[in-house]
Amino acid sequence: MISVVLLGAGNVATHLFKAFKSSDTVVLKQWYNRNYEAIKSYKNDTEVIDSLSNLKEADIYIFAISDDAISNMSKQLPFSDRFVVHTSGSVSMHDMDKKNTRGVFYPLQTFSKTSDISFEDVPFCIETEDKLRLQLLKDLASAIGSKSYKISTEQRQTLHLSAVFVNNFTNQLYRIAHEISDAKSINFEILKPLILETAKKVQDISPYMAQTGPAKRNDKKTIKRHLKQIESEAHKTIYELLTASIQKTHGTSTRLSNRKNSNHKTD
Amino acid sequence: MISVVLLGAGNVATHLFKAFKSSDTVVLKQWYNRNYEAIKSYKNDTEVIDSLSNLKEADIYIFAISDDAISNMSKQLPFSDRFVVHTSGSVSMHDMDKKNTRGVFYPLQTFSKTSDISFEDVPFCIETEDKLRLQLLKDLASAIGSKSYKISTEQRQTLHLSAVFVNNFTNQLYRIAHEISDAKSINFEILKPLILETAKKVQDISPYMAQTGPAKRNDKKTIKRHLKQIESEAHKTIYELLTASIQKTHGTSTRLSNRKNSNHKTD
Repeated sequence: MISVVLLGAGNVATHLFKAFKSSDTVVLKQWYNRNYEAIKSYKNDTEVIDSLSNLKEADIYIFAISDDAISNMSKQLPFSDRFVVHTSGSVSMHDMDKKNTRGVFYPLQTFSKTSDISFEDVPFCIETEDKLRLQLLKDLASAIGSKSYKISTEQRQTLHLSAVFVNNFTNQLYRIAHEISDAKSINFEILKPLILETAKKVQDISPYMAQTGPAKRNDKKTIKRHLKQIESEAHKTIYELLTASIQKTHGTSTRLSNRKNSNHKTD
Repeated sequence: MISVVLLGAGNVATHLFKAFKSSDTVVLKQWYNRNYEAIKSYKNDTEVIDSLSNLKEADIYIFAISDDAISNMSKQLPFSDRFVVHTSGSVSMHDMDKKNTRGVFYPLQTFSKTSDISFEDVPFCIETEDKLRLQLLKDLASAIGSKSYKISTEQRQTLHLSAVFVNNFTNQLYRIAHEISDAKSINFEILKPLILETAKKVQDISPYMAQTGPAKRNDKKTIKRHLKQIESEAHKTIYELLTASIQKTHGTSTRLSNRKNSNHKTD
């Protein structure tokens, strides 16, 4: 059994709470939050506290709080030589007070308040000061059905950046497609299967191998027509920039190519 | 029963061939391709031909050929007053010869040679010259388990453009994340569940509602650190442009905001 105290009440904390509660090998000893109101409805499920001085002994203390609050709260802990981890993608392990043994337990996933997520789909990036504790974090991840990867602080910060590309930026491309199709009274439903299939494709093959479309095959006629269709200057710039990026990746930049365009189907 | 003749041998044609063969309500009468070699291995499954003069009578003739070849092949058909559709996202219905009744049967999905796709996940954009034939295309779509939507040529061309955003451009963002993480020896596997979850999220809520991250909440500190981390100037430009796009969508542009940054968790 792994005993855990959870600190914080945001999305990540709430999802972790549920996962710990339903695990057979995790004992959630306490749930702390500065603001008692936010978690008091769970008081029948675990011991809910709002004072750090009431913290009990546990194998792992998990900070699921905002990045800016991590360093400060680590200093306020009324004990030392215990094992404290944060769940941030960008904060260094060493930003926490060294009176305790430090670690990181970063779930690389997008969490929403409303919808449940299976922790099988949440990889944890783990890092610890000592090797022994690394195994403990691995066990904790696998206790809630998650995979874990040993990741350094620098690697984690790179993953955090990469996540912005595959999550926030990708989602913005969905948004732009939504705007473009809305303007012509097109049901966004029609694009949803393609969105899903595009994400599924790279589960098995690399994004490089998965690429198709006018940019990759340097289909100037289609690119020109698309640019003419786009009404927003900002969207036009994004189209041009990502087209150039694809062409750079696939060596099909306009200047290089005097070849005859291939006649592949546009998909 | 709906009788069909398929023309062309690319990805779309091959996937349609399989779907028609396994449908109880579709009879695939012939499969035509200019180059016999490409389809001859299917000669035990259907009648395989390489001459337009051998075309038999059928309810629908489906052109699954390259965009540039559609107009020309429609002229070469040795019959008139039959029903001919193409499967292109960008070619106008009226680009085909008017000696036959014309229509469009455009599958909005990405097809690959190697992996199978369930036609339940392929919405068809349909368009016809006459109303009666519209029902026939609806029936054909539903015969292979697909949904269909009545879409005009202008709408279809807009969908084709939107598809570039949600498919080709999104895939390029995956590629950039792959490059960035590869450079720090990070296993791309770690990002795959996030890629999938991001696509799943917008199946239920709008991309607008699904947005999170530093750009949306105008977290200047994180944005600045990310820009510092990015080594490629091209990637930096894409980061800046998509950050600005998100901020425009969500009304959080830097110039507007002197507000205190919120402390939400970065995900």
